Formats: sequence, C-alpha cells, structure tokens
Amino acid sequence: MFSSKYRLQTTRPSRQIPILFSILVLLATNSVADEGMWQPHQLPDLSDKLRQLGLEIDPENLSRLDQFPMNAVVSLGGCSASFVSPQGLVVTNHHCVYGSVQYNSTPENNLLEDGFLAKQLSEEIPTAPGTRVYVTEEVTDVTSAVLAGVSASTSGIDRYKSIEANRKALIAACESSGNHRCGVSSFHGGMEYFLIKRLEVRDVRLVYAPATSIGKYGGDIDNWQWPRHTGDFGFYRAYVGRDGQPAEFSDDNVPYTPASFLEVSAKGVEDGDFVMGVGYPGSTNRYRTTGEVENEFEWYYPEARGFREDLISIINENSAAGSAARIAYEGTLASLSNYAKNFQSMVESYQHSDFIDRRKQAEADLADWINADSTRAQQYAPALRQLESLIETDQAARERDLVRSYMGYATLPNTAHRLYRLAVEKQKPDVEREPGYQERDLSRFRQSMQAISRRYDETVDKATLSYLLSRYAELPEQYRSQATDSFFGISNSFDQGQVDQIIEDSYAQSSLDDEAARLAWIDSSVEDFQNSDDPLIRYAVASHAERTALELEDKELIGQFQRWRPQYMEAIIAYNRSLNQPIYADANSSLRVTFGQVRGNQPKDGLINQPFTALEGILGKDTGVDPFNAPAKQLDLIKAKQYGDYILPSLGTVPVNFLSTLDITGGNSGTATMNSKAQLVGLLFDGVYESIIGDWDFDDNKNRAISVDARYMLWVMEFMDGATNLLQEMTIVD
Amino acid sequence: MFSSKYRLQTTRPSRQIPILFSILVLLATNSVADEGMWQPHQLPDLSDKLRQLGLEIDPENLSRLDQFPMNAVVSLGGCSASFVSPQGLVVTNHHCVYGSVQYNSTPENNLLEDGFLAKQLSEEIPTAPGTRVYVTEEVTDVTSAVLAGVSASTSGIDRYKSIEANRKALIAACESSGNHRCGVSSFHGGMEYFLIKRLEVRDVRLVYAPATSIGKYGGDIDNWQWPRHTGDFGFYRAYVGRDGQPAEFSDDNVPYTPASFLEVSAKGVEDGDFVMGVGYPGSTNRYRTTGEVENEFEWYYPEARGFREDLISIINENSAAGSAARIAYEGTLASLSNYAKNFQSMVESYQHSDFIDRRKQAEADLADWINADSTRAQQYAPALRQLESLIETDQAARERDLVRSYMGYATLPNTAHRLYRLAVEKQKPDVEREPGYQERDLSRFRQSMQAISRRYDETVDKATLSYLLSRYAELPEQYRSQATDSFFGISNSFDQGQVDQIIEDSYAQSSLDDEAARLAWIDSSVEDFQNSDDPLIRYAVASHAERTALELEDKELIGQFQRWRPQYMEAIIAYNRSLNQPIYADANSSLRVTFGQVRGNQPKDGLINQPFTALEGILGKDTGVDPFNAPAKQLDLIKAKQYGDYILPSLGTVPVNFLSTLDITGGNSGTATMNSKAQLVGLLFDGVYESIIGDWDFDDNKNRAISVDARYMLWVMEFMDGATNLLQEMTIVD
Repeated sequence: MFSSKYRLQTTRPSRQIPILFSILVLLATNSVADEGMWQPHQLPDLSDKLRQLGLEIDPENLSRLDQFPMNAVVSLGGCSASFVSPQGLVVTNHHCVYGSVQYNSTPENNLLEDGFLAKQLSEEIPTAPGTRVYVTEEVTDVTSAVLAGVSASTSGIDRYKSIEANRKALIAACESSGNHRCGVSSFHGGMEYFLIKRLEVRDVRLVYAPATSIGKYGGDIDNWQWPRHTGDFGFYRAYVGRDGQPAEFSDDNVPYTPASFLEVSAKGVEDGDFVMGVGYPGSTNRYRTTGEVENEFEWYYPEARGFREDLISIINENSAAGSAARIAYEGTLASLSNYAKNFQSMVESYQHSDFIDRRKQAEADLADWINADSTRAQQYAPALRQLESLIETDQAARERDLVRSYMGYATLPNTAHRLYRLAVEKQKPDVEREPGYQERDLSRFRQSMQAISRRYDETVDKATLSYLLSRYAELPEQYRSQATDSFFGISNSFDQGQVDQIIEDSYAQSSLDDEAARLAWIDSSVEDFQNSDDPLIRYAVASHAERTALELEDKELIGQFQRWRPQYMEAIIAYNRSLNQPIYADANSSLRVTFGQVRGNQPKDGLINQPFTALEGILGKDTGVDPFNAPAKQLDLIKAKQYGDYILPSLGTVPVNFLSTLDITGGNSGTATMNSKAQLVGLLFDGVYESIIGDWDFDDNKNRAISVDARYMLWVMEFMDGATNLLQEMTIVD
Repeated sequence: MFSSKYRLQTTRPSRQIPILFSILVLLATNSVADEGMWQPHQLPDLSDKLRQLGLEIDPENLSRLDQFPMNAVVSLGGCSASFVSPQGLVVTNHHCVYGSVQYNSTPENNLLEDGFLAKQLSEEIPTAPGTRVYVTEEVTDVTSAVLAGVSASTSGIDRYKSIEANRKALIAACESSGNHRCGVSSFHGGMEYFLIKRLEVRDVRLVYAPATSIGKYGGDIDNWQWPRHTGDFGFYRAYVGRDGQPAEFSDDNVPYTPASFLEVSAKGVEDGDFVMGVGYPGSTNRYRTTGEVENEFEWYYPEARGFREDLISIINENSAAGSAARIAYEGTLASLSNYAKNFQSMVESYQHSDFIDRRKQAEADLADWINADSTRAQQYAPALRQLESLIETDQAARERDLVRSYMGYATLPNTAHRLYRLAVEKQKPDVEREPGYQERDLSRFRQSMQAISRRYDETVDKATLSYLLSRYAELPEQYRSQATDSFFGISNSFDQGQVDQIIEDSYAQSSLDDEAARLAWIDSSVEDFQNSDDPLIRYAVASHAERTALELEDKELIGQFQRWRPQYMEAIIAYNRSLNQPIYADANSSLRVTFGQVRGNQPKDGLINQPFTALEGILGKDTGVDPFNAPAKQLDLIKAKQYGDYILPSLGTVPVNFLSTLDITGGNSGTATMNSKAQLVGLLFDGVYESIIGDWDFDDNKNRAISVDARYMLWVMEFMDGATNLLQEMTIVD
C-alpha cells in the first residue's frame, strides 16, 4: 500500500534534517496520456480532453472547491477520504483507519482480527488521538505575500527566513478562528505559493472496519503487487458541536453536515471506462535535473536501501519474534521495509528504462530552446547554471547528510535533542520559532513523547545507536561533529567496544526512557537542561550549537534553491507553453485531480495484468495463513457463488480490485475513484510495483493505480458484515 | 528446467531403494483437450482429432518407428533429441549438452562462459564419458513372454523374480549384436510389457553450444517460470565406424546417417497453431488411487521437501561459497533445490485445486460402474480391494522408507554398500544378478566410482551423514537396523556427540575417499571385504543381511502390486472404453507423442501469460549479473533491432520462448516441438510453475509447456555465433 501513514503522518525527526534530500528535484516529461496531478483551477483548461474521455459533469465544477464533487473530498492528514452521506460519514482505506482500530483493540476485544461495526451512532467509538478530518475551504494564491521583502540580492539565509516569517504570519492569521488548520504550500519549487485553509474536525469516530483478514488481505507480501485482492476500506464519521463548529470529543456533539457527499455506484466500472480521483498526493519529483536524478538513483537509493536493511537486521536480531520488543517495532519495521522495497523498485525500474536518456534529451531540448533566442538566454540561462551549481554543493556532503537523516532512528538521543530544541525555541516569540516547535504544534509534540513508550525497547535502541555511530565514524573528520566525537570517544581510529560501553553507561544513567520524565522535560527551561546529569541530555546540550550551525547551512542552501528553482521552473513552463502543453506542479499534499481510464497493462514481456481481479481469486490465493487467511465465511460465500447484485458481467463474478491509469502517489490513499458522473466506484489504495518510479517518471505503459472496487466493498458490507445501517445511510445508485 | 538430467541420468543409489516410493500411484482423469502422452501405435485411433487440430502429415506415419518423422527422433538417455541433418547432427537442449560443455571447459578455455562452435567436423570434440545417442529401432509387445511362468497363485516374491528373470533374458537376447541397448518397459503398472530395442551410438561429439548466458539465461531463478527468455539449445553429432555400426570414439569414425531428419522452420508458429512433440517422458502418476494421492501430497511431499531443505542448509553451512567443496556439490545442490521447489509447487497446487475431490469422484464413479454389473464386480472388485490393502501395507513404514531413500546422500557409506553389493552379486551367474550389477552395467559402475572424486567433500559428507543418522535415530526401534544402531552406537536415547565421534573416526580410517582405492574394490572378492579393516567397509558387510532382507520385503510387495495393479488398470481402461475415451499409459521413458496448440493461459486470477516472449524482454530482464547477464553483443543487437528473417509479425520482433498445451514431463527435455508438417519449430525444455502437479493431474487451464522458439535459435546462430556451417547443413524452410 502507499505508505502515506509512514511518510506523511510520521513525526520522525529524521525528516526535519535532510530537507535538501526530500526537496531533491526534473524536466517536464511530455504531458502525455493520463499523466498529471492537476490543481483544481487548471481543470477548465483541460475540459475538452475531459469531455472526450467521457466526463459527464461540467469540468468547471472540478475547479470550484465549494461545488460538488470537490466539497465532498477531505483529507485525513496523510490519507485522502470522501463524505458519503449527509451525516458526515467518511470513507477511506482500511490502512488509513488501521491505527484507530488498533487503538481500540484489546486481547479480549480484538477489533483488528474481528473488524468493527457500529450499528447506530451511539456505538461509534473514538479514533486514535490526533485523528482529524480536514475540509479544504479555500485555496488562495499568496505568492506575493510570501515573497514580500525578498529581492534578487537577498542572501540565501535571509530569503529562507523572510519566506518562513511570511508563511507563519499568513498561517497565524488564517488560523485565528481556532477551527482551522492552514498551510502555505510551495508550487514549482517556490514559483507560486498558495494558502490552504482547512476546517479541522477534531471529533472523529470509528464507524466500521472489516476484519484485517479482508482489509489488509495479502499484507506486506502483496504490497505494491498485482494481482491484488485487498478489501482496503473503512469508515469514520466527522462530529462537530451543536453549533456546527469543530469541537473536542463530547457526547453532545452531533454528526457534521457536509456541503455535499458522493453517491456510491453499485453498477461500477468496466474495462476502458473513464475514472478520476480527487485527493491529496504527498510528493513527486517530476522536474528534477539530470544531476539530481543520477544522484538519487545511482547513489542515494542504493545506499539508503542498505541503511534500511541493516536497521531491519539489527531490530530483528535484538528482539525475539513475538516479544513485546518486536511488537513495539512493528511499525518501524514496516516503514523500513516498505521503503527498502520502494527503493529497490526505483533502482530496478531505473536500470531497465531509458528514463535518464529521455531526461538528458529533454534537458538538452530545453537548453536548445533557451539558447535559440537571446532574450530567453538572458532570462533563463543563469538559472540553469546556478541550479546545477547548487545541486553540486548540496551533494558534496551527501554521505554525511545520509548518516544524519538516519540518526533519528536512535530514539533516546533523538528525544533528548528534540526536548532541548523545544526549550531553546520556547525562548523566542512564538512566531519566530522553528515549525514543529510553535504553540500550534505542542499537543502533537506531547503525543509523540507519549507514543515513544509504545515504540521503544532499550536493547534495540542501543544496538541501533551503535550501528549508526559505526556508520558515522566512517565519515571523514571534516564531516564529523566534535561534540559527537568527544561524547562517544570517536576519532579517526574507531573502537566499537569502547563506543558500546559509553552507550551502555549513558542509557543506564538516562531517565528518558521513562514517560513521566520525558513529559516533565517539555516544560523545562534551557537552564534545567544545562544543569542536568542525564548523559543523553548533556549530549544534546553539547551538540546543539553544531546542529544549529548545520541547520543554518541547510537553510542558506534552501534559500538559494528558493531563488533559482522557480526560475528554472518558469523556463520549463514557458518551453512547454511554446509546445502548447500544460504543466502540472509536483505533488505537495495539496488537493489534486487525476483522470484516466480503467485499464490493465503489460508489466513485463510475456505477461499481462488484467484490469480486474475476481472474488474467486481469493480462493486461489488463500492459504489459511496470515496474510492470506480470508474468513471461513467469506470462502464459503464465494464457493456458493453468493454474488448479490455486485457482478461485473464481463467477469461473471464480483470484481475485487481494479487497475486504472490514474496518476497518484502516497497521500492518495483513500481517494475516491469516481466515474464520469463523480459517483464513487472504488477507493485508490496502491500502485503496481512498476509504478513506484512514477514519483519521478510517469510511464503510461507501466503506471497503474490499484483501487478496491466499490462492488466488493458493498458485497463485504452486505454479505460478510451485515452493515445494513450504512448501506441505508449511503445513497447507492445503479 | 525439467531436471531430467538429475532424475533420469543420475546413478544416485537412493533411487534404487525406495522403489515403492517412486512407484507410488490415480484414476484416469477424463481425457480432455490436449492431455495425453500417446504410444505411437495409438495414434491412428486419434487421427480424426489430429486432422481436426491441423496435422497435415498422415497420422499413420506417427505410428511407424521406421518412418519420418519418428525415425528422426532419438533419446540421449534422460533427454530427448532429434536429427536435423543427413550427417547425424542432433539438436537438443543446452541443459542436455551442459555436462559435455562443462567436461571440456577449463579456466583457460571456458566453454561454459564463451560457448563452443566447431566450424568443421575436425573441430568437433568428445562429449562427457557415457554420452550416448539412442535410436529406437523396434518396440515389441512381450507381455506374454514377461509373464511366462506366472499364475494367479504365484507369490509376490516369486512373481517379482520370474518377471525380472524373463525381462533379463529378453534383454540379453536383444543386445546380442553388441550394438544395441534394450529394455523391457512396463505399461499400466504391468498390464503390458514392451521390449524396446535401441541402437546405441557410442561416439557422440559436441558440435555447438551457445554461451551459458544465453543457453541458461535466467538460471535457477527462472526455472519453472514464465515469462522466460532461455536459449536452451545445443548440438551433438552421432559418429559410427566406417561400417556404419556403432563404435567407440575413433578418428576413423564417420558421421552417422540417420534414416530421416527434421527440417527446421524459420517461419515458425503463431498463437493457436497446431504443435506436437515426440520424445521420451520419464514418469507420471495419473492413475493413482485416492489413498496414494493423499499420502503423496499430504505427507510425502511436505516431508521430503523438509529433508531437502535441511540437506541444502548442511551443504551450504559446511562449504564456503566459491570453495572447491561447494563447487563439488553444485550439482547436488541444484538437484536438491530443484525438487524442493517442485515439491513446494505440488503442495501449493494441490491445496488450491479440487484435484482430490475430482479424484474421489472418479474413484466412486468407477466403483459404481463396476458394481452395477455382477460379472464386472466379480472381475474387478477384488483388485480394487487388494490394491487398497497393498497401499496401506506400503505406507505403514513410510517414515523408515523416507529416511532410507535419503541415506544415499552420505556418499562414503553408500559407496561401501554398493561396492560390497557388487562383490556379492558377482558370485552369481550374470543373468541372476541384480540390475545395475550385471556385466552390461560395469563400465557405468566404474564411471560412477570415478565421478565421486569430483562430487565429494569429507566435511560435507560427514555432516550429511550426521544429519541423516539423527533423522534415522528418530525412527521407532522396530524400523531401525541392528547393524546401524550397533555401528553408530544408536539406541532409543540418541547421543549426537557420540555418533559424530564415530563418524569422525570412521572417515579418518577409511580409504574410500581415494579413487584408486575405490576402483580396486571393484575387483575384490566377498572375502576381501569381510577381512577388511576399513570401518565403512565393515559397516557395509555388517549391514548387508538386513539391507537384503528389506529389499526382499520390497520385492514381495512389488510382486503383489504387479499382480493387482494391472487388474485395476484393466478396470479403468474398460470403464473408459465404455465412455468411448481412449487411455494413454503413464510415462515410463518410452517414446511418446503429445499434441496440442500454441496457447497462453491465466496462471492466476488477474494475470495472463502471453504465448510468446520477445527479444526485447531480455533487455527488460537483464541486470548484468548471472543469471541475467546476456552478452553485451546480444544487448546491442537487440537495441539495434537486428531481427534478420526471424520476426513473428504479430509480435513485431523475434520470439524467444513460447507456451503450448503439450503434455510433457522430465525426460521430454530437448524434444522437438513440431508444426503440422513435422518441421521443427522449437525445442521443449520446461513447464510453467503450475504445470508441476501435471505429473499427477493434467489441468488444461494450468498446464503449459515452454519451448525455445526455432526462430530465436536461428537468430542466435546467425547473429551471435556465426554458425553458418550448421545453418547451411540443416534444411531451413520458410
């Protein structure tokens, strides 16, 4: 499945450091076929193509956030979802509600195993802490406000700071109601900025989730694979106060009334039918330079995959299968291996495609176009040169940055760094603080400090730190930290035994593994930290200056990228305009529309992926062993050909999952797959293995999105779980 | 690939012991679609169907061994092959000539890596010792001669002995010319016997083999898989004396002139075209009882797979990768893992099919038909009962028999047993000796004693024996051997350390690891053995009586099966005749004809196997790392679309491998896939993963044979290897 839960919801600090890594960068591939994650306002320009493909509603509607179907679409912060009733019923993926099912699950009442269904409102239960439903209300172009005070001569660090300050001011004003969560999203590497205002529904309840043996059927083995038979759907409900405004959980709250909702089609789609998806894709890199692509695929992905596999081994070796320690690390392991597989696919696809050759050709074509005209050359050529130079600078210390980006996997030292950072940030006025440490972030910060108790084991953490330090020690001296060298006794000659002894002693003397102790540090002052005897706190204090200095270097570079990347993107856009090709921006977790068709493909020579899988495929796959352990009742229903009204005639049975050409990525999980009338015909939840490189290079023949078919969802609801109350509440159409 | 080299050419003694295992046992599935390995004499009865499917030659020809195309087909003893020129040029699979390439390969002149091509007769080189080309000349029904002296009242052991004696006499008479190798094959479990007389060409030379990176492309990873891109072809030439009779290798020999040869089609086949295969399938079990099927799939395959995986681990743990020891065991490892994968597939297919339900139904239908008529009931009902009872007896000691069947993997003790057995057998007149120990077998026996030098490592062998004895020690006392218990100090309480010490001492004092010592024992007397101090020889002598007693028990049971199985088969045949359905006999390494169509299939829900793979698929699969390391020249040729005249128009490129519905098994490797005119359009070399259970249960939707396309063979010959001499020698037609 798309690991949006890991990628987009995580609070892992490792994401905060290597910004330059995650903001790595391509030239526009030709906007062929079904490629494109379009901003709503672009849709009217594409209306001819949309109508030709079969869209029956007015394309104009897709550009208006206050119109159907756009106002039926919501974000869960990392997942996408849709309203499917006038009473705030929300449908998304099973893997997006999984955390809430797990949260309510006990050995005696194992909701994960049995599934959960509230037969009436009063039986609906609270979701995992922090669960939100975000309804996008406004998207405003704030480019000039964000860039206010910035000129061509502004230095990198000043540019970075100005932009951050302007962003924070816009967000603060936008959130003044107390009921909204706002963000300023950068498009085209900072060429445009949009303020996105979202209503934040804070009382979200779990309504229905099928058994994991349906909702996560195939598990990690089938992850990114076709053929697929996963019932990846689940239901939440949004609640608000009696005044209709967002409120904390209360028995007095009432279901939220959305402006519109999606009808659910029991007729569904057939091979070749028009489909579209409206959701919140997280991140893509479709306009990066050749140098960035080569670095990522030829160096970063192989190296990072090695890091992940080492970490997986270390966790497994230091926690017995089935032990409490292992259970605590299940989520970490899933994330590590999901991306190890992801990176592996990236490298395989890269090696077996002509991606880099096409990229080089596109870059050469752009340069030719720019240089063919002296005005254009004057306007754009410096950006190309400067960007290339910045990329070289960025990559110079890539070994160090890679190690830094994985250091966060050592939980206790990282916790110490974050706690001390909070104390330091709190000395500043709120608006000047680093994102993540502002008042608006503190409840999440506290939750993350609590969550460590369920995700930590001392033996594993010490072994992880030991490994990370051995990798760190391989760095040339210029890239090492004096504080770290000094604290762990590292020099150019590395003594693992000595380092391990220091780790041993530090952990023995630290109280950060105690939840109460951690939470107490949240309210402590910088002085408290500086006077502490806790070795890990002392290390955090000692290394703070160096960490901050590195961060400043990062920001200087980011600021410079913020100057040149937009100009580079302007050149690409102008070039494509000259070819009459529209350009969409890279995904950035903002609302996007993708459209295409239900269609199979040829994943490799000699093999064809059919567009639909069938109920009977579950019989063929089932072994009785997790993750291929469908409920006995389901196997019996299938053997009895109990299809109900959910048959796809050309298949002769109930379709389970289907392929389409929709252009999606992590964050699209839970996105409603809609038909030409904007009725829900499925839920997007994954892509095929060959789609993984799609974040960089969309190939119309290889990229396929996987949806759970609405007919299968309805079949499970009717025959497996008797969710008649929900079937009645939704508007099901033929 | 079909591992006929391992299964049918091996001299592993483990095959000699568990006869009852390898003669495990099904009711006829309905002879639908393309199922059937037909004896040539049956073909005229099927002529309507053959013509309807598209056969253009006279079906009568397929029943006459002295007519084209039957007399162009030869056996290599474990593989099938065909003459493709009037000068004795033989084409078969690369994996069938692999041993000879390996035999001629040196670090300086690495034929495996580079391939080999003789540009003229004088450059052709000797093949591995023992390589033969067998030309089937006559097939005679000898049922009455084999059963002479046998009556209903003959005991099991007497029946076994009579049949063996009659067989040997027939063989001896048949081989009197000195130029033939004869065999008596049992059909339908002993209902019919045929004497098969084959000319034995003893001077066979290696003519051409492509590089292993073409001939074994995909290696073990792609073994049993589709899509496939393997250039699995190679060429031998048969030589005879100037008198035209078989002779040992000599410079004076001349190419053999076959009675006919196959033309090679450069036009090839297209999806849906008629194809047939004439070859030597080794063994199938399509008429076994429910009890036999359940035992095999629910007990034997899972258990035996465990044994194999344990042995693989032991070999790997006791030999460093790349060491001489590991290299010595490569063949053993390949065989162990090939069948571990085979057994795994068997179990998976069994679990996901209704095979056992259909088998039970067929058995019930047969019983109903028999009992519906009192004459029939009198004739057949006893056989059903008796067979069932025999099967129960056979399975009673299955744990012991499984251990016995794997004991041969301990090379030195097994060598001692075989050498002592030879001395014992030599005391008898030749005609009374056990098969394998007759004069006709001695040159092969000697070769196998020499071959141990290249396949043995003391550390691995001791660890293997230690493991096997630990499994042996788990047997209840009644199933253990007193001699073995006594020699290794095993009792109901097992002390691995003590056993290992005895192994250590025995190996230290034994000289059987010395080739000269082994060979000297071949000519030693029983007395020499009895006076020997070699601990392993002493163990062989001490355990001989028990081993012989067990063998007698086996033979008694085999004799009883020889009484009842034929009657059971008669019932099945009579029943099918009543339904107007012809029945083919289980494969037994005799010449068979299979016919069907070029056709893809749906291996699992949501996935389609296309019938052809394409040259470009090699680009998609290639990683540069063995086994996906096509020669750079080949990759360049493909990128340059250098197709020559070998394009399949509907594919737009050169086809590499193709699927067909032909019914084949191990031993069919190298079989010519022929078109409707009996021209060679490919070479059969493997089946898809879902075909593995086909040895028991042919499913028209799942079973697919894989051929290397003749167009790819010709393409490699022309563009990669410049084998113009062979292209000119063969008759290539459009």
